Amino acid sequence: MTIKIIGYPTSPPALKVIATLNELGVTDYSFDPPENFLEIKSPKFLAEKNPFGKIPVLIDDGFTIYESRPMARYIVAKYQGKCNKKILYPDDIQKAAIVDQYISTESCYYDPPLYDILFQELFKGFGGGGGPDAEIVNAQHEKIAKILDIYERILEGKQFLTGSDITLADIFHYPTAAYTAKKHKDLWESRPNVKRWIDNIAKSEGVKKTFEDYPVLQF
Amino acid sequence: MTIKIIGYPTSPPALKVIATLNELGVTDYSFDPPENFLEIKSPKFLAEKNPFGKIPVLIDDGFTIYESRPMARYIVAKYQGKCNKKILYPDDIQKAAIVDQYISTESCYYDPPLYDILFQELFKGFGGGGGPDAEIVNAQHEKIAKILDIYERILEGKQFLTGSDITLADIFHYPTAAYTAKKHKDLWESRPNVKRWIDNIAKSEGVKKTFEDYPVLQF
Ligand SMILES: N[C@@H](CCC(=O)N[C@@H](CS)C(=O)NCC(=O)O)C(=O)O
Ligand SMILES: N[C@@H](CCC(=O)N[C@@H](CS)C(=O)NCC(=O)O)C(=O)O
Repeated sequence: MTIKIIGYPTSPPALKVIATLNELGVTDYSFDPPENFLEIKSPKFLAEKNPFGKIPVLIDDGFTIYESRPMARYIVAKYQGKCNKKILYPDDIQKAAIVDQYISTESCYYDPPLYDILFQELFKGFGGGGGPDAEIVNAQHEKIAKILDIYERILEGKQFLTGSDITLADIFHYPTAAYTAKKHKDLWESRPNVKRWIDNIAKSEGVKKTFEDYPVLQF
Repeated sequence: MTIKIIGYPTSPPALKVIATLNELGVTDYSFDPPENFLEIKSPKFLAEKNPFGKIPVLIDDGFTIYESRPMARYIVAKYQGKCNKKILYPDDIQKAAIVDQYISTESCYYDPPLYDILFQELFKGFGGGGGPDAEIVNAQHEKIAKILDIYERILEGKQFLTGSDITLADIFHYPTAAYTAKKHKDLWESRPNVKRWIDNIAKSEGVKKTFEDYPVLQF
């Protein structure tokens, strides 16, 4: 039974989910992109898919779930170890807790400023939204720079956030980094530990495949 | 071995963790509040406790973890079913995924505006920060009102977010609601499903004990 993802395979939250599928070797999934952004605010979508009017939404064998991080957790719970031997979320309680810790820092401190920058530069650029607001971009750039200084310290001597193996936490950090890599080179190039880490994630087989299949949009 | 929580038992993120402990019947925990807010930015604290310079931090038998939601997940993984029969995070993969879904909506859409309001009204009030910025409070009030309209719809016919039993997701929503209940009565009183839900959480044994032990600060 094919896993269906309602969303655009180029959006950062959707890419969190696809990279998780690919890392675990799950190949049986397909996309069902909405016709346009109005569709996800329609009464039918709000009632049947996601009352928050957001994508991605995942449907697996009749089971519907929204929010990308829970979608990825669900995929791990159901498919980890079934198609390959990769462990993205460990059984060990303490090791799992540290993965959760970095999923939380991603979601609370790392993603919001990067997503705000992308919203300005990518979505407002595309949609005829009048182009990016430089003041917002600068403020968020400053915010994420400080957060990346903390990551630089956390990543000292490490290949990935929790040590030598990629986990769900690393994967979640990648899409917004990939999307800001060119326009905000300074963020990613000036911190050696952060740079090594992002390169390591990029080279991981499932992430690599994901961004070959769905290259970063140019803007 | 006592679980140590570095933090103030009156702060909303710490209360997420304490309520989880109390719901699961774990009684062997204690607080170790920092002397002041400067301590959590000290080189020692950043190096040994939390590089993000935030509280709460949990230490359990030598294991250190920061970020309240991962702390609560860790407590569930380690202690659920050990002291009482309450299940805050189900084994069933689909049921767990829906708990995760609402943990994500709490963290992405619900908590940030409420926390911003509290930051203005509570922390800036206390710390001599010049008092609340009415413009920020109003903007965030408008934001959370729209989010609660969505919750009102989700909670139709339900006792808790995922049905008839309290879960980790409900617990996480409670502290910021309790703290804004008086000053922002309209948010919580004008939506019958939201009101019933919050009342149900408040009545749950562990949450009730938590807020009896650590009553909401008045401001
Ligand atoms: N926290 C959500 C964020 C999803 C999100 O913001 N999706 C965007 C597209 S990339 C969207 O649906 N935007 C429409 C809107 O917010 O109105 C997740 O991780 O899935
Ligand atoms: N996402 C964190 C938030 C923790 C947080 O914001 N704690 C506040 C106290 S309630 C803090 O440490 N503030 C100090 C600061 O941010 O500088 C969690 O859930 O634990």
